[in-house]
Amino acid sequence: MATIVFCSVNKTAQTTARRCSISHLKRLARSGEPHLPLSCIHSKPVTFLPGTRWFSRGCSVRFMSQGTAGRSATWRTRKGALALSGAAAVAAAVAGFLANANHFQRAEMAKKVSRAAEETEQEGGILERCRGFMSPPVTDISVLQERKEEMRTRMEMLIMETQADFCNALQEVDGGTFKVDQWQRNEGGGGISCVMQDGKVFEKAGVNVSVVFGNLTEEAAKQMRSRGKVLKGKDGKLPFCAMGVSSVIHPKNPHIPTVHFNYRYFEIEEEDGTKQWWFGGGTDLTPVYVNKEDAFHFHNTLREACDKHHPQYYPDFKKWCDRYFYIRHRGETRGIGGIFFDDLDSPSQEEAFNFVKSCARTVVPCYLPIVSKHLNESFTDEDKDWQQVRRGRYVEFNLVYDRGVKFGLATPGSRIESILMSLPLTARWEYMHEPAKGTLEAEMLEVLRNPKEWV
Amino acid sequence: MATIVFCSVNKTAQTTARRCSISHLKRLARSGEPHLPLSCIHSKPVTFLPGTRWFSRGCSVRFMSQGTAGRSATWRTRKGALALSGAAAVAAAVAGFLANANHFQRAEMAKKVSRAAEETEQEGGILERCRGFMSPPVTDISVLQERKEEMRTRMEMLIMETQADFCNALQEVDGGTFKVDQWQRNEGGGGISCVMQDGKVFEKAGVNVSVVFGNLTEEAAKQMRSRGKVLKGKDGKLPFCAMGVSSVIHPKNPHIPTVHFNYRYFEIEEEDGTKQWWFGGGTDLTPVYVNKEDAFHFHNTLREACDKHHPQYYPDFKKWCDRYFYIRHRGETRGIGGIFFDDLDSPSQEEAFNFVKSCARTVVPCYLPIVSKHLNESFTDEDKDWQQVRRGRYVEFNLVYDRGVKFGLATPGSRIESILMSLPLTARWEYMHEPAKGTLEAEMLEVLRNPKEWV
Repeated sequence: MATIVFCSVNKTAQTTARRCSISHLKRLARSGEPHLPLSCIHSKPVTFLPGTRWFSRGCSVRFMSQGTAGRSATWRTRKGALALSGAAAVAAAVAGFLANANHFQRAEMAKKVSRAAEETEQEGGILERCRGFMSPPVTDISVLQERKEEMRTRMEMLIMETQADFCNALQEVDGGTFKVDQWQRNEGGGGISCVMQDGKVFEKAGVNVSVVFGNLTEEAAKQMRSRGKVLKGKDGKLPFCAMGVSSVIHPKNPHIPTVHFNYRYFEIEEEDGTKQWWFGGGTDLTPVYVNKEDAFHFHNTLREACDKHHPQYYPDFKKWCDRYFYIRHRGETRGIGGIFFDDLDSPSQEEAFNFVKSCARTVVPCYLPIVSKHLNESFTDEDKDWQQVRRGRYVEFNLVYDRGVKFGLATPGSRIESILMSLPLTARWEYMHEPAKGTLEAEMLEVLRNPKEWV
Repeated sequence: MATIVFCSVNKTAQTTARRCSISHLKRLARSGEPHLPLSCIHSKPVTFLPGTRWFSRGCSVRFMSQGTAGRSATWRTRKGALALSGAAAVAAAVAGFLANANHFQRAEMAKKVSRAAEETEQEGGILERCRGFMSPPVTDISVLQERKEEMRTRMEMLIMETQADFCNALQEVDGGTFKVDQWQRNEGGGGISCVMQDGKVFEKAGVNVSVVFGNLTEEAAKQMRSRGKVLKGKDGKLPFCAMGVSSVIHPKNPHIPTVHFNYRYFEIEEEDGTKQWWFGGGTDLTPVYVNKEDAFHFHNTLREACDKHHPQYYPDFKKWCDRYFYIRHRGETRGIGGIFFDDLDSPSQEEAFNFVKSCARTVVPCYLPIVSKHLNESFTDEDKDWQQVRRGRYVEFNLVYDRGVKFGLATPGSRIESILMSLPLTARWEYMHEPAKGTLEAEMLEVLRNPKEWV
């Protein structure tokens, strides 16, 4: 199966876009964006974007911070125009394509689109790419421009793009708008949290970027060493930089699964100036009911992304995912898995980054077709109850086992709201809940108790 | 202020009961319990109880186990008669008293009743006392009779009584019935979980008794030692016995607070046969809105129970409670506290037990007056939302910090449903929820961020 990609400006893409999202484009045209021709079906911002507040201030302006909801809102209003004219158009194309095409039958054509998109993806300068983001990046744009060849810059650009692409795709399908909070960390760095709550389709959707740096605490360094990293600090100091994009999406309709993904990069500078680095991440699905077609599509899309880089990645990282997202006290996995990996530092930084890039770019094609497919499916109160019980288990995993959450809660200065935005809006705990044999609920439990191979 | 106690069979008590619950007793009389005279206002079972299934089988019968819901239900049906004629009558008296008397103005008379009740509380044999329990005790009745002077027997009787008294008081006010599950632990011992879900008044009410024994794992022994216990095992084995009653009650009405209590006893036998023992426990309140009168009543009732034993108990254990029930990542306490203590092994076993007994017997008078007071208060959707957000924080504390829950989840063979019955039926997580200044919600947060002295 081929991979759905962001339509790029070439003939094939235009054809695809025209075939599947003409109605959407008409809607966009009616919305008072006269500068929005068909040719805006880009995965990168177009050149005729109106100036925005943060942008017009120059490259190094960063003026939103935690707690400035009012200012953030002001910015969002202005950003609205940008989103509509830029990245949202991408999402529009994707969503339109998804809504009209046979969900999981993607043509050979799409593959060609994919390659074309990849070839052009590095085009355009830092400044131009930043225009499509949900907010100014954490690092000053001037700094990013200065060191645009460095991995930390390339990764920051990738996570910002992943956030924007995913948020825009979700906004398009929901009709709602993400609340964007940019926050700073006293010890160095900060983040951008995008949350949409109580939307039409999504109960709670969070997409978070963080870029933090400083000196590793002794505790954290110890943890790194225990994971096999030999680290030599200078005067007990280990400068580090960590960044990532993470997201959890809880839809309202019990037939649309919850999705989670996280892609991250870690860099430590040792005494002699050498840098240790590694990547980690994964994407996994948590349905309320088993849908084999969805499961196949999700896993297969991931497998295809993995296979481009190493034939062992998918099988290994699929197993790792099942092991990691395991609610031990329940004897159940959290969902039907996906991929999960950590400490990836081979075969080369370039190749590892390319793999992570493939994974990050597969998030929308993994998930959005499934959302679109179930969008208008009806459900009963019983379906909703079962969803709420499963949400309870999601909370249990996140608060009891998730290493990221545990680390975040235990770290002074963490932004708790960004860490816990992964929790659903609502959850339920019923005493001794056990579905009757032969029900769809029992079928789901059976899968969670005995992880399956889906592709 | 005096403490409301279970009315006992003496003239004062009858007067009190008559004054406050005549209507209730009339109701009971109408309910077809011809053997229920006014004189049944006991805290202990009366002598004319009908035989029940488990009882008629003799003293050492224990036939309910985890998973036998059907049988459990059968037993509960029969037990219904017992509950009505025995312990429920106690609850009836208490509830009636609470409903009709001025909630927090209890007369000097009640104090006298209290003393009289305490004097007679040890009357009646093991067999007779067991008739009032929610199920047969964990330990065979014949074994309890054989060693009725031992502390483990006295404590098991106390926790079973506390469970029954509290369950009956709650059933009376709710009109619903507790589901009673008796379960066994492969490694030794077992427990009785009583859960009422989606009742008229209570969203979820759990009252759990467990009595477990065996040999301490090396991990647990290490933990004990780190707490200052010098323990010498024989061939690496440390026989132990641990028992306790614990409860969490989540009402539906946001004006009725959540209550939690737990009283426990631990015994370890060392190499030379000497026994190390200690008690622990506490009762604490988690309101959704600040109500100073409730807070005063709750803390003052606890203070009075403590003051009977040591003037330093209340102030020390109140502070300990505020420290323990602290959601560090939120910078908030879970609720408005109460008392909490652990490792209590002085001044003597007898005196420590008497203190724990006072605490356990103060649960109903601490909480039921508050329930009755707010029973018919109306509430808005906004009140309910705020309650659900606070429930989310309750879940956070229980899953992230509570030592009992963490220990339970990490211990193989634990009964997860009994451990997690403390979680509410429903909870909510809103991103960046911050009540507006001057609202009742902000007032509650202020109290949680800066614990107060209530008495």
